Amino acid sequence: METKAAENATPARHIRDELTAEGALAASARMQVTRIGVDTYQESVVYLHRDSIACKSIGFDALARVVVRHGTRSIVATLNVISGDWLGTGAAGLSEAAWHRLGAHQGDHVTLAHSSPAESASDLRGKVYGHRLVRAQCQGLLQDAIDGRLSDIEIAAFVTACTSAEFDLAESVALTEAMVAVGEQLHWPSKIVLDKHSVGGLPGNRTTPIIVAIVAAAGGLIPKTSSRAITSPAGTADTMATMTKVDLDLRAMRRVVEREGGCIVWGGAVSLSPADDVLIRVERSLDFDSDVQLIASVLSKKKAAGATHVVLDVPVGPTAKVRTPEAAAALGKRLLDVAAAIDLSVVVQISDGRQPVGRGIGPALEAWEVLRVLRNTEDAAVNLRNHALDLAGRVLEFDPSVLAGTGRSKAEGLLQSGAAWRKFQSICEAQGAFHEPPVAAQRFTIVSGTSGVVTDIDNRKLAKVAKLAGAPRDASAGLVLHAPLEKHIVAGEPLLTLHAESEGELRYARDYFESHPQIIRMDNDS
Amino acid sequence: METKAAENATPARHIRDELTAEGALAASARMQVTRIGVDTYQESVVYLHRDSIACKSIGFDALARVVVRHGTRSIVATLNVISGDWLGTGAAGLSEAAWHRLGAHQGDHVTLAHSSPAESASDLRGKVYGHRLVRAQCQGLLQDAIDGRLSDIEIAAFVTACTSAEFDLAESVALTEAMVAVGEQLHWPSKIVLDKHSVGGLPGNRTTPIIVAIVAAAGGLIPKTSSRAITSPAGTADTMATMTKVDLDLRAMRRVVEREGGCIVWGGAVSLSPADDVLIRVERSLDFDSDVQLIASVLSKKKAAGATHVVLDVPVGPTAKVRTPEAAAALGKRLLDVAAAIDLSVVVQISDGRQPVGRGIGPALEAWEVLRVLRNTEDAAVNLRNHALDLAGRVLEFDPSVLAGTGRSKAEGLLQSGAAWRKFQSICEAQGAFHEPPVAAQRFTIVSGTSGVVTDIDNRKLAKVAKLAGAPRDASAGLVLHAPLEKHIVAGEPLLTLHAESEGELRYARDYFESHPQIIRMDNDS
Repeated sequence: METKAAENATPARHIRDELTAEGALAASARMQVTRIGVDTYQESVVYLHRDSIACKSIGFDALARVVVRHGTRSIVATLNVISGDWLGTGAAGLSEAAWHRLGAHQGDHVTLAHSSPAESASDLRGKVYGHRLVRAQCQGLLQDAIDGRLSDIEIAAFVTACTSAEFDLAESVALTEAMVAVGEQLHWPSKIVLDKHSVGGLPGNRTTPIIVAIVAAAGGLIPKTSSRAITSPAGTADTMATMTKVDLDLRAMRRVVEREGGCIVWGGAVSLSPADDVLIRVERSLDFDSDVQLIASVLSKKKAAGATHVVLDVPVGPTAKVRTPEAAAALGKRLLDVAAAIDLSVVVQISDGRQPVGRGIGPALEAWEVLRVLRNTEDAAVNLRNHALDLAGRVLEFDPSVLAGTGRSKAEGLLQSGAAWRKFQSICEAQGAFHEPPVAAQRFTIVSGTSGVVTDIDNRKLAKVAKLAGAPRDASAGLVLHAPLEKHIVAGEPLLTLHAESEGELRYARDYFESHPQIIRMDNDS
Repeated sequence: METKAAENATPARHIRDELTAEGALAASARMQVTRIGVDTYQESVVYLHRDSIACKSIGFDALARVVVRHGTRSIVATLNVISGDWLGTGAAGLSEAAWHRLGAHQGDHVTLAHSSPAESASDLRGKVYGHRLVRAQCQGLLQDAIDGRLSDIEIAAFVTACTSAEFDLAESVALTEAMVAVGEQLHWPSKIVLDKHSVGGLPGNRTTPIIVAIVAAAGGLIPKTSSRAITSPAGTADTMATMTKVDLDLRAMRRVVEREGGCIVWGGAVSLSPADDVLIRVERSLDFDSDVQLIASVLSKKKAAGATHVVLDVPVGPTAKVRTPEAAAALGKRLLDVAAAIDLSVVVQISDGRQPVGRGIGPALEAWEVLRVLRNTEDAAVNLRNHALDLAGRVLEFDPSVLAGTGRSKAEGLLQSGAAWRKFQSICEAQGAFHEPPVAAQRFTIVSGTSGVVTDIDNRKLAKVAKLAGAPRDASAGLVLHAPLEKHIVAGEPLLTLHAESEGELRYARDYFESHPQIIRMDNDS
């Protein structure tokens, strides 16, 4: 069907002569882009004044998705309509995420248009309606999430669908493979590339630096990428950052590993699992802790880092991420099934998750714990040392020349002899330089008002105390626990010492601890 | 366990004397509230500067939920962190939704604190993990959604879970009952309270005013609430608003119904289904069209309006909401099952949804169509007249004194005699006053470039043309279709006439139509 202007045409007629159809649309929504400094996390948001030509003429709907074009680049953003006078009618304000994705300069001209839904959105709908997702569909959804073509609402629907009980093993494998496929992938010139991972939820538990040092000292290849804290008081990358440089790019990381056999760098800088970063923030916001997401997240990161053999530490305890032995068994089975499907050799090791591992909680306080173990000092935390040796022993046994059951004593020998400590220093030097962690300006020790035996520790609330003290933003902040499980405490003896950079933060942490007596529960002496 | 300050306490000690634990937290996050005029739709968002004491000291996480307290009132809002200089460090900026919910004045002091997750969030997680939702849980989730205690991300997860194929009949009933329970409910002094509803997706199809007029003229009780357009070019309330007042409160609505036996008011003003308003915008954004949501939305509104007997019009066509007879049958069955469970008598009537009903699309253009039918003018649209009579006939047959099969002729008699037209005018007078609909300032007729028979009409894209012309924002805007299915068009004959208030909008609508030749498909003469 062709169309042409009718002879009875009124005012619109002469307009046709000025502009083509496309030109008309483009001109209608031509605006000056401005950075307004709103952190909406990773969602791209565009702010337009209610009275702007783009808003009025295109007739945006609620929660509309808009294409913002700048030269050959374009992004998709969610629209927020402004009625305040802080944004001009000729301006298109961008959130930080949108600003960085578009890469324009202040005042550049951009054009705006309605966005058609992302292609992957129909796969998402299909999944919700009961179809199975295959790998290519997962990959399309993840790529659109990374590129900002899916809104947070769409990502929430995707995460919900993946969390649902019906998400089967084949889909779990498809999702994990897709997460690898949408990021960078490292390859190493060795048949055995080692790695370890703790499922988390436990404060302290900073075994990674110790394990990498031991394994690399034994001659193993262990190119470790770690994360920064998202909701915890410290990630391994935060702790390492108090002693050396961790934001290495891929080339620098490769150089360190080639020289030292191991590294401990921040995974965020090498972009190994960009999809995980996008999904995790929505998952946390929903407090969804599904096995599917956890497995896809963990195994995709290991696969992307080029690992072939991985030890997975699964702490189990009432306030750890995995709360019961049954849950650990179910998670372990699915982990091994997916790992086998993507050709990863995985050993799952269940550990005690009833209390923190080590006494320090917070980036630098955990670094001090690590150093005490590596330096074999008398005050090294016994449970951190033992747990690190258990895991390092299992990693060493992936080497066919290490007999089963002998890994732990080999690991202990390397720690005891100082070889692990020397290797740790060499790795830090290779990454930049080694320096001692910082110490907080303010401290406050809370003592017990009663005498008794410690029976329960709430890991989650204890972590919150450390966060209120400033961790991980202030590297020196956090707390040191003096009252582990089963210890007998006499009234007046210390329960914990808070570390902070400011009096205010010390106070918040203390107020919170004192108003939550269940954080450390005691069976009082009668 | 009690705690007390240790003797070795450093700076924090004297602070304890100044402030109680609670006071310290409250003071820390005391800010001046400011309305910044950002329309985030219904989500409450609070904007804090990165360097504000609230942001720095409480250590907000990504996508944090924050409680904002003002006197005895409080709201929960999603945090956006500002690094731009347009918001001061002592200010807490509120989105429009947050501003209206909190009810504070510019510059009032508010306190901010972390929000614990809404209680219903754990029911939501349970549902996603595979449990069944019962009515009390649905009600908790809906109430939290209405009150802004659930974030858009949580609402998206809820909508996704409800859309999933496993959502069973009992849950569908529970959700529908909960939607009634969280809103107002009307009661009428009559055993038979009539209503009708069209499932939508079809432009035009403005049968409601005609049916209400006929049924009320017959002595039936039909207190009709209608919606405004969300993504369509016009809702019944938009069309009625071009002829009378529609935003009546409950008392005014009751007075009209008592006097006239019927009304046609805007449901949004009487707050009959507040949960639906909150969910629908997320559903639209996800483009989820599940039977569960549709049924809960439609039946809860009817139940809340006090209806006992309802005719549901389900247009079926490739670009209607319901696309196949099979889908219509499945929807019809679930509709009847849920209706029976909540004690509503429902008749489902399948109709032709292949093309618009009536020729006008847009609030006033549809009002003119309605008036032509009511006034029995020669140019009244035959399909609109017939469709309205079919439905009115079914409604009339709910009266036990009307024999099955005689409703339609009774309806036709009331229309033909002018009784329906007089009743319509009386209803409009009772609602405020009757006035003629407006006429657009600009028009443009698009003619066919070829000759042939019209074979297909894309309802959705045709609706978009009307929206680009300015509907429903400009009541007079939209289009008139001259080329219904099966009509033979000679080259140069009109296909449609665009109506708009500005040349620009006329141009957008025309550009879009001309670049989408599939909107009106023709089998060209050979």
